[in-house]
Amino acid sequence: MRYLKLTVAYDGTNFVGWQIQPNGPSVQGHLQSAWNLVTGESAVITGSGRTDSGVHAVGQVASLMTEQSLAIASIPGAMNANLPQTIVVREADELDYDFHAIRDAVSKTYRYTIQMGRRRSPFLLKRSWYVPRTLDLELMGRAGQLFVGRQDFASLQSAGAPRRSTVRTILELRCQALELEEFPVFQIYVTGDGFLYNMVRNLVGTLMLVGRHKLGLDDIPKILAAKNRAIAGPTAPAEGLTLMHVEHRRPDPTNTA
Amino acid sequence: MRYLKLTVAYDGTNFVGWQIQPNGPSVQGHLQSAWNLVTGESAVITGSGRTDSGVHAVGQVASLMTEQSLAIASIPGAMNANLPQTIVVREADELDYDFHAIRDAVSKTYRYTIQMGRRRSPFLLKRSWYVPRTLDLELMGRAGQLFVGRQDFASLQSAGAPRRSTVRTILELRCQALELEEFPVFQIYVTGDGFLYNMVRNLVGTLMLVGRHKLGLDDIPKILAAKNRAIAGPTAPAEGLTLMHVEHRRPDPTNTA
Repeated sequence: MRYLKLTVAYDGTNFVGWQIQPNGPSVQGHLQSAWNLVTGESAVITGSGRTDSGVHAVGQVASLMTEQSLAIASIPGAMNANLPQTIVVREADELDYDFHAIRDAVSKTYRYTIQMGRRRSPFLLKRSWYVPRTLDLELMGRAGQLFVGRQDFASLQSAGAPRRSTVRTILELRCQALELEEFPVFQIYVTGDGFLYNMVRNLVGTLMLVGRHKLGLDDIPKILAAKNRAIAGPTAPAEGLTLMHVEHRRPDPTNTA
Repeated sequence: MRYLKLTVAYDGTNFVGWQIQPNGPSVQGHLQSAWNLVTGESAVITGSGRTDSGVHAVGQVASLMTEQSLAIASIPGAMNANLPQTIVVREADELDYDFHAIRDAVSKTYRYTIQMGRRRSPFLLKRSWYVPRTLDLELMGRAGQLFVGRQDFASLQSAGAPRRSTVRTILELRCQALELEEFPVFQIYVTGDGFLYNMVRNLVGTLMLVGRHKLGLDDIPKILAAKNRAIAGPTAPAEGLTLMHVEHRRPDPTNTA
């Protein structure tokens, strides 16, 4: 058995999300079809993060097990020839151990893009959240730091996919203001060891309220302490979110089931 | 009579180009319709550069004369409410002299984006020319400098819109290699006092042949001297081209007809 790691970029606009679903085309479904067309083999391709409909990826990482002997270097080109242009296999790597994209993930980094100001960019329509206001970016940056660390993020978990524990660690949160095609944007990079359902989008919706001075810095610890989704900010739209990177560890062989 | 200057950004993908044409929606047509919906007035809106179908603009500049008294600050918002989201009036200014976007243009800056390498970015599909190769970017940068100056660019003029003179001045040509969403791109900024039909796209097609070592540096002066379109490179596709900026002068009153 061979263990493969695929690094995949996609524009999530026209997909129901990563995961195969009955109601439309998914990234996972396209990848599995492409693999089947290339090899004749039916395989499950597991993504490190199940991105929702409209969410993009620059560096999604997926795992797959295969008995095919095709050369690793030929896999991206062969799969891309059988994928829509909005999904691209950037790299394929072969690992010498049982690699699993979810189990072995150590951290994921998401980026959220807010486009601000009075004019909406024609170039970021499906790639950002347009907030037609002036936001207090400095305060948003400071508020962002209050989410960093090992905390209970129950207040930032949307209903629909409850987890045993709502404690997660945000390892880093970094903000930058820049212009894309001369339109001002604010980007929030969040790296964590795991994320609850819609956690990044709910975090960004909460930061946006800070930017509008509807919430203050002292509200952030209160929101987290309440463990109540209703008092945090709105869920920022999917199209502003991009899965940038996933870090994996080599599992400890003494620790494997 | 009031003289207005509009700064307009658009994603050119779904338009037949700037200019009104019978075969589909144009940027100019949408702007004139929006103006008519806002004011009830029929006006001609003149663009500094007549971008082709698929060509984008970050800073197209257009002129219009009006007898309407509406406040200048309200014009972008009112027009944008009547435009598709892929066309945005960024700014409106009022000038105290007879301003004409073509006649008074001093220079225009275009940017051309080539996306290179083995994997095509899903994020630049209608915004770049995908060249699935390694290009000699250093040599392309050096070749680009050979186009700078006042020269006869007949070899870079596509058929279809002959001009009295094919002499133009390229004021500056600047190249940069960078990554967009982790995919390598090469961008060529060209500033000139005027451009022949398809001149930037033909220049880029010629530079691409330099990047592939199909042409050398010494071929550039020969191509220009030949005044023969057939010996220059191919016309780079429209979707890689963006009109970035237009500079205008205040016309000399003693010099006006």
